[in-house]
Amino acid sequence: MTDKEKIISMLKEFASPTKMASFFVNNATSDFLFIRPSGNPINAEGFEKMISSDVIQEKAEITKIHRLESLSDNVMMCVFTLGSKFTYKGMPNNDLPTVTSVFKKVDNIWKIYWMQRSTGNSDLSLWD
Amino acid sequence: MTDKEKIISMLKEFASPTKMASFFVNNATSDFLFIRPSGNPINAEGFEKMISSDVIQEKAEITKIHRLESLSDNVMMCVFTLGSKFTYKGMPNNDLPTVTSVFKKVDNIWKIYWMQRSTGNSDLSLWD
Repeated sequence: MTDKEKIISMLKEFASPTKMASFFVNNATSDFLFIRPSGNPINAEGFEKMISSDVIQEKAEITKIHRLESLSDNVMMCVFTLGSKFTYKGMPNNDLPTVTSVFKKVDNIWKIYWMQRSTGNSDLSLWD
Repeated sequence: MTDKEKIISMLKEFASPTKMASFFVNNATSDFLFIRPSGNPINAEGFEKMISSDVIQEKAEITKIHRLESLSDNVMMCVFTLGSKFTYKGMPNNDLPTVTSVFKKVDNIWKIYWMQRSTGNSDLSLWD
């Protein structure tokens, strides 16, 4: 697998209803943070707790990759639209956020280092 | 000036009420995009038009830098909280978004390549 294929495969794992909660615990650097639409940061353990307790994930997918770029031999950046259908504290959501993510290769293993996602109502046609 | 000092100085220029509108037109790579809280992308010219027509900027500042990191010799990443007081289409805002930004050195000049900002109500104490 090339580095790009590896990143795409990791993102597909992230966008899996059964694997999303624990994805960062299993695949992130120790200083990883996820930035929520509010701008509030949450670490891998906090993300797992939030998804496990408040979210029932119905469907998730990498809807479209806008940028997938090597920033150095050991750093990749990926910007994508995430399609995600879930209930959050009982409220149904059908989200289409834009996500910026940065990956680092640590001891030859790709780890996710940073992820920021927007609110859920982006207009996918604006990327055309 | 070190590379880090240069990036901070650029961000201070961005966070200037009189310079924000044209900042990306003057300092961004040709493929730069700004990701709005909605997840919608806007390019440097679109950002300038939006700020010039819809926003009256009262005050802006780099409230806190959370990460400022060299990802390679020619790539820097900065995550910060932006403090910004403005009216948008007549609506007053007092924003505290989290911003992820990526800079690239092109022909020895630092340019901004990517910026994603959250909605405006982040809790700064969560970074402590």
